[in-house]
Amino acid sequence: MAMHGIVLFGHGARDVRWREPFERLAIKLRDASFGARPVALAFLELMEPDLPTAVGDLVAQGCDVVTVVPVFFGQGGHVRKDLPLIIEQCQALHPSALIKCAGAVGEDDAVLDAVAEYCLRQV
Amino acid sequence: MAMHGIVLFGHGARDVRWREPFERLAIKLRDASFGARPVALAFLELMEPDLPTAVGDLVAQGCDVVTVVPVFFGQGGHVRKDLPLIIEQCQALHPSALIKCAGAVGEDDAVLDAVAEYCLRQV
Repeated sequence: MAMHGIVLFGHGARDVRWREPFERLAIKLRDASFGARPVALAFLELMEPDLPTAVGDLVAQGCDVVTVVPVFFGQGGHVRKDLPLIIEQCQALHPSALIKCAGAVGEDDAVLDAVAEYCLRQV
Repeated sequence: MAMHGIVLFGHGARDVRWREPFERLAIKLRDASFGARPVALAFLELMEPDLPTAVGDLVAQGCDVVTVVPVFFGQGGHVRKDLPLIIEQCQALHPSALIKCAGAVGEDDAVLDAVAEYCLRQV
């Protein structure tokens, strides 16, 4: 059976507290699979690890398939241009594994519904 | 009765498609209040309008209270340092209205749950 890992890919920031929601998200995903599914964080800039490092770690842990989820609200240049190139590099580095890329989480309707509900709780 | 407006505050990006989820979110919020609650978008950089313009528009529409919701995953320098200063400017420009600021949407547990569910649907 294929071992399937997830990389939560965020922009990164100078302020270390910026990564807190990403850490919480990783914990939620690990809990959901009872620890059976490897979950890693990766960042485009200003924070470590970068995506090739995170993908390499998951492949080294035995993942045959790695899905990169862009934890971005919108699909701008980072998601539409920078990310496909990095995924291509990762795929070339690990030809035995399949490196897939999901759409940005902010494009998902259920995520937007949850954000809208949050907004309505603030007013 | 006080008229309460919402500003969805995002980072902004060069790629115009980046703002799509923000537009969808604004529509969801307008629909939820049957159009009774003014909702505006505002961006920190690279996109218009900026926050003072959006807040000014809502106050001009008659809002007594404006809640700014940072549509960011993490609370980094933009949310913790830049945003409070801009909110302060907006408050000084509109002393008759109350300009409030919510926490970043990505800190909300229900939003993170929705993001986690999205991630699990990708694998």
